[in-house]
Amino acid sequence: MANITKKVSWSSRADESGATGEGTPLLNGSEQPRHSRQLSEGRSIFQIGRLSTVDLEEEITSDEDSLRGRPKEIPHNEKLLSLKFESLDYDNIENQLFLEEERRMSYMGFRCLEISRWVVCGLIGFLTGLIACFIDIVVEELAGIKYQVVKQNIEKFTEAGGLSISLILWAVFNSAFVMVGAIIVAYFEPIAAGSGIPQIKCYLNGIKIPRVVRLKTLVVKVCGVICSVVGGLAVGKEGPMIHSGAVVAAGVSQGRSTSLKRDFKIFEYFRRDTEKRDFVSAGAAAGVSAAFGAPVGGVLFSLEEGASFWNQMLTWRIFFASMISTFTLNFFLSIYHNKPGDLSSPGLINFGRFESDLYVVLWRITSMRFPCSSYVHRPCLQVMEAMLVAAVTATVSFTMIYFSNDCQPLGPEHNEEYPLQLFCADGEYNSMATAFFNTPERSVRSLFHNQPGSYNPLTLGLFTLTYFFLACWTYGLAVSAGVFIPSLLIGAAWGRLFGILLASITSNIWADPGKYALIGAAAQLGGIVRMTLSLTVIMVEATGNVTYGLPIMLVLMTAKIVGDYFVEGLYDIHIKLQSVPFLHWEAPATSHWLTAREVMSSPVTCLNRIEKVGTIVDVLSNTSTNHNGFPVVVQVAGSDEPAKLCGLILRSQLIVLLKHKVFVELARSRLNQRKLQLKDFRDAYPRFPPIQSIHVSQDERECMMDLTEFMNPTPYTVPQETSLPRVFKLFRALGLRHLVVVDDQNRVIGLVTRKDLARYHLGKHGLEELQLAHT
Amino acid sequence: MANITKKVSWSSRADESGATGEGTPLLNGSEQPRHSRQLSEGRSIFQIGRLSTVDLEEEITSDEDSLRGRPKEIPHNEKLLSLKFESLDYDNIENQLFLEEERRMSYMGFRCLEISRWVVCGLIGFLTGLIACFIDIVVEELAGIKYQVVKQNIEKFTEAGGLSISLILWAVFNSAFVMVGAIIVAYFEPIAAGSGIPQIKCYLNGIKIPRVVRLKTLVVKVCGVICSVVGGLAVGKEGPMIHSGAVVAAGVSQGRSTSLKRDFKIFEYFRRDTEKRDFVSAGAAAGVSAAFGAPVGGVLFSLEEGASFWNQMLTWRIFFASMISTFTLNFFLSIYHNKPGDLSSPGLINFGRFESDLYVVLWRITSMRFPCSSYVHRPCLQVMEAMLVAAVTATVSFTMIYFSNDCQPLGPEHNEEYPLQLFCADGEYNSMATAFFNTPERSVRSLFHNQPGSYNPLTLGLFTLTYFFLACWTYGLAVSAGVFIPSLLIGAAWGRLFGILLASITSNIWADPGKYALIGAAAQLGGIVRMTLSLTVIMVEATGNVTYGLPIMLVLMTAKIVGDYFVEGLYDIHIKLQSVPFLHWEAPATSHWLTAREVMSSPVTCLNRIEKVGTIVDVLSNTSTNHNGFPVVVQVAGSDEPAKLCGLILRSQLIVLLKHKVFVELARSRLNQRKLQLKDFRDAYPRFPPIQSIHVSQDERECMMDLTEFMNPTPYTVPQETSLPRVFKLFRALGLRHLVVVDDQNRVIGLVTRKDLARYHLGKHGLEELQLAHT
Repeated sequence: MANITKKVSWSSRADESGATGEGTPLLNGSEQPRHSRQLSEGRSIFQIGRLSTVDLEEEITSDEDSLRGRPKEIPHNEKLLSLKFESLDYDNIENQLFLEEERRMSYMGFRCLEISRWVVCGLIGFLTGLIACFIDIVVEELAGIKYQVVKQNIEKFTEAGGLSISLILWAVFNSAFVMVGAIIVAYFEPIAAGSGIPQIKCYLNGIKIPRVVRLKTLVVKVCGVICSVVGGLAVGKEGPMIHSGAVVAAGVSQGRSTSLKRDFKIFEYFRRDTEKRDFVSAGAAAGVSAAFGAPVGGVLFSLEEGASFWNQMLTWRIFFASMISTFTLNFFLSIYHNKPGDLSSPGLINFGRFESDLYVVLWRITSMRFPCSSYVHRPCLQVMEAMLVAAVTATVSFTMIYFSNDCQPLGPEHNEEYPLQLFCADGEYNSMATAFFNTPERSVRSLFHNQPGSYNPLTLGLFTLTYFFLACWTYGLAVSAGVFIPSLLIGAAWGRLFGILLASITSNIWADPGKYALIGAAAQLGGIVRMTLSLTVIMVEATGNVTYGLPIMLVLMTAKIVGDYFVEGLYDIHIKLQSVPFLHWEAPATSHWLTAREVMSSPVTCLNRIEKVGTIVDVLSNTSTNHNGFPVVVQVAGSDEPAKLCGLILRSQLIVLLKHKVFVELARSRLNQRKLQLKDFRDAYPRFPPIQSIHVSQDERECMMDLTEFMNPTPYTVPQETSLPRVFKLFRALGLRHLVVVDDQNRVIGLVTRKDLARYHLGKHGLEELQLAHT
Repeated sequence: MANITKKVSWSSRADESGATGEGTPLLNGSEQPRHSRQLSEGRSIFQIGRLSTVDLEEEITSDEDSLRGRPKEIPHNEKLLSLKFESLDYDNIENQLFLEEERRMSYMGFRCLEISRWVVCGLIGFLTGLIACFIDIVVEELAGIKYQVVKQNIEKFTEAGGLSISLILWAVFNSAFVMVGAIIVAYFEPIAAGSGIPQIKCYLNGIKIPRVVRLKTLVVKVCGVICSVVGGLAVGKEGPMIHSGAVVAAGVSQGRSTSLKRDFKIFEYFRRDTEKRDFVSAGAAAGVSAAFGAPVGGVLFSLEEGASFWNQMLTWRIFFASMISTFTLNFFLSIYHNKPGDLSSPGLINFGRFESDLYVVLWRITSMRFPCSSYVHRPCLQVMEAMLVAAVTATVSFTMIYFSNDCQPLGPEHNEEYPLQLFCADGEYNSMATAFFNTPERSVRSLFHNQPGSYNPLTLGLFTLTYFFLACWTYGLAVSAGVFIPSLLIGAAWGRLFGILLASITSNIWADPGKYALIGAAAQLGGIVRMTLSLTVIMVEATGNVTYGLPIMLVLMTAKIVGDYFVEGLYDIHIKLQSVPFLHWEAPATSHWLTAREVMSSPVTCLNRIEKVGTIVDVLSNTSTNHNGFPVVVQVAGSDEPAKLCGLILRSQLIVLLKHKVFVELARSRLNQRKLQLKDFRDAYPRFPPIQSIHVSQDERECMMDLTEFMNPTPYTVPQETSLPRVFKLFRALGLRHLVVVDDQNRVIGLVTRKDLARYHLGKHGLEELQLAHT
């Protein structure tokens, strides 16, 4: 959360600076003439897009504003697209070095690679399962201690009076845990805040989110989530598991840890974005699988949320990782629970097994969202806010329990481990306490499985309302925490309430309120995260009953349709707020009238195939453009023909070349030149040094650099008349980073990048274009 | 089956003709120089491919052979690639007409389209469910009558003697049903033979299999499968459901029936390959869903078997269709079974609900396949063969039952509807009859669920062996039938046998043989069809118990690994035998040394943007090449620059243009020309007339045709140095049909089609190249 708001503030800052002329002349420059040109051609792109004239005028005004240098009025940060985020290279850079290596490799070599991919996936699954197991056991133990102490204290003071001491004890406990969690997140690794699912979604989409798959992030995330859950916040530990799985995957697959400066010299082949992405999707799936005991759901999650790629072998490996992860978790948990070999324990979350007939319920779903986000930016304030929320949560819970007079008989069949008697008669327990005085997972299970009549409607109603507001508030905090379990809990509460009311109206024909709780939970979660396929499978796998598939599906689809009518899903909102150039599945429907010519960035900085080192250094040092890919062109010697495209080279490659001084000194023979290996590029991956850290002497600047071996000689190109949806499809299907636009003579006339495509989106009035901001 | 063998004979015929000079000069011509060139360059592609020298010599010899005109020795038909199969256009033809239509369309228009896509998917699900319901009820009723009559007859003759009359009755019953089934398949629609899954796999891969999604095929398939199942063959009705779903989808989505000559004037927008494919994948998923009661499994099947595309919205629609299909089936079946509203009946196949703990079993899987195929080609012989198999099946079953002395007490818990007492004591039944005298679905269920001790090991062993050979023989027949259920049955039988043996060795520690039956069934089926992800989900959904997921997964993966070591999966073998140019997920691993230049077909027939009608007619009429796509080039007037690529046009488009006489007469004004609409192309889709049916007069031949509006002005292109894996990825990810290879001046130098890519495959000795044959 801290992250988002920070970025928001950055964007406004940067936008002002951009508008006052400190920004990037190139992109802004190319931006404005384009609009003007189109308007002057008398064929406004916005007319065709069926914008109302009002919007058109607004557009013109803002153009004029920026021309005059006045700061632009930006209505929402959602309307911005940050240029800060870089893309990942999901397209292989097939340069000569790479091709030579591939050609040298025997069939057995490829078999070994394939086997090591499976081994890596197995490792990912195993480690993810272990982490899930660790989180689960630590949370159980710590929460157990906490609830025991508080319970004893409450029992002691119930008769003696002075329950306020219990309250304070509870609040202090919670705040202490949350403080630790908030401190490590706020001071050490702010990216570890929240569930991490939006970040992983972005990563799989091809966007480089800084520090998202580092070891430090993992450690902070794991400790943070333990603290938040034990601290009694309205959060779950499932979302962070997905992030953890992804980090594990990114680490294991590289065979080294850059943070720990250890290189095991294995899996070197996997040190590039394409391979790493495949493993990260396996890791995310393993995380889902461990969190929900849902291996198939994990695979579907990876595919639904992340992948534009779909490859049978990859999918099987993802499946394998998920399977191993569930297995590992169950195996160690079964040992922990002293039932070794009983592997049916399904994941961190366990809804218990529903055993019953199917029923169909039509169902009206309210689509809710957590609309709140924190506006606190400074770390110390963030920690204090988190502690405040923890204390308030304890207080509210305590108050609710205290004033509740919903006593229920204590039976052997109840799931809750810490029944609070309070002011109830002996052999009875306080029903409100079942919901509040418990980890959220247990509360959900109680709502699903407790006998009809275990809760009275007032308890549930109050609980839903309170917990909803607590969850909203909590969501904005700088702690590692997921939104799955709170959503499920809220949904289960109002679902059960609905079931009870329905039963009382229809005189118990529609009997079991526990099933309504399940459906309500699905609806609430579906309305928030807007997944359908994977969520259905996750819920089915978590309930252990296939026959609930149909109603859950129906409910999730309804929730999605109703929800989409009002607002996007939570993760998408998140991504939008961060101004991330996220590429959706398809180009906006009404974008056929846009062509590559209108979409591309131009002019493009091109390099010659044999280029002066000084030029390259200057191009790379130009902080105002910060381009990452450069078309390489070749001019036929002695002819006045225009230069033809012959390749594409990346900033990171040029950096490595400069670092290793792969220069051709014109005076000397080329044999002196050190031969660069693919290994040199792999060693530098993924943290390439900035150009500023590389010293190039004045003599060296006069040398030449031969890019032939290193550039990608066959970049994908499109003609300039290609329609936006076609460009988009090519870009998305192949996971491109740069797409060169050429004319019919094969001359470079522009470059399409992720930001050029992500800018266009369907707003209320048709196609809208986001502003680009250097934030 | 008839199909395969027919094609085999065709291929050998055609190959001979090709070698004697009647064949296609162009492709064969370009083929041979290529080899020679590479050999003469001293850099044999086969050396790099690590072929042994023996192979190299063979290659040279065969080259020489063909040069001398001697017929080549073709070791297997698997080594051929048929040029007969055409590709589907999964890439949108974005010509001016299309773009104009898209640009005219408002945002609401796109919303309506989206809604109609959902409606179509709903309809597909509904109709597929209805068909499944129809098949199920008819099979139940007819099989019920058959078994009742035979049972009464057996009971009558058991004591009186003369059981041979019962045998004859049974055999006649079976043969009669099978005869009907075989006749309609062999005489009316041979494509309806088998399960249809390989054909649907090919369709989704982008290969046009003639008549595969026609109404007639559907009718024959449905009737055929009813006859085969009722006829007691060792077949299942599940595979054909997938094909049926696909046909329904292809029909419904087009809003018309070409066979019935009815056009409802709806869904005209969907009349192109891209849209149709999406619906067909939904239909296939709905079919799986109806067959196994596995909606999620259906979605995964569609994706695993078919799709290189993965799109969130599409996946949801597929899911919706699956859901509706299961729902429809369950709804109508619940009415049929007099339990309206009880919707838990899961699909055609219903394994019953397993309620029990999880167990893990290591498991050694024998990978079996059905190696047999029929060599009978003439329809009347095919019918007779099918009848023979039916009679033999009845005889063998009867003999087995007759000589079996495995009597079991008749309890109330047994599932089988037709227990045969035969020579058993009163209150007992013949255990062998449970397996043979029953529909295979019921037999599977008995094997899964009957009490330990219901079968003795000898019975199971004999049954496994007999049924395996029957299933093999049956598989080659010209009847509509699936392989799922026989595989499951065989697997269940030996799984149960294994369980019993294990129990006797370990003195009942590993208790329930029913679970071993389930695992065995999964292993057997997985070993045959080699699906993992979707099959796991299907099995889990069909058993209604999520906790079996893990062992089923493990077993399926083991089966796949062991199986792949020996031979490909059944469907892949099928596809290979038919010489279909099937594109796998990735290019062969060791193919990096091949580039577009080596892979492409050249020279390419290009058309000018404004071309003489006579030229076009001649090009299209050239039966020896039969090209389907033509690059369009433009020559700058008055310059001697080489012609530049400016578009791509398809044979089908040219046919429509010729049919509508869209000619520019040089003498007259262009205003006389009739303006062609996108509608004209859609009306002609998908059965474009052959060029021979279009009459073009001598005068018209002198006219010109302007292709500008109709060609795709932005075809995807690659430079000639692009490596094969890169070309492959582009081709596969975008579902291309033609990929133009250009030089650095944007001149056309070649064309890559599906066949050029599908030719290369990994054989035992490295990369091998399949021969192309005009069959």
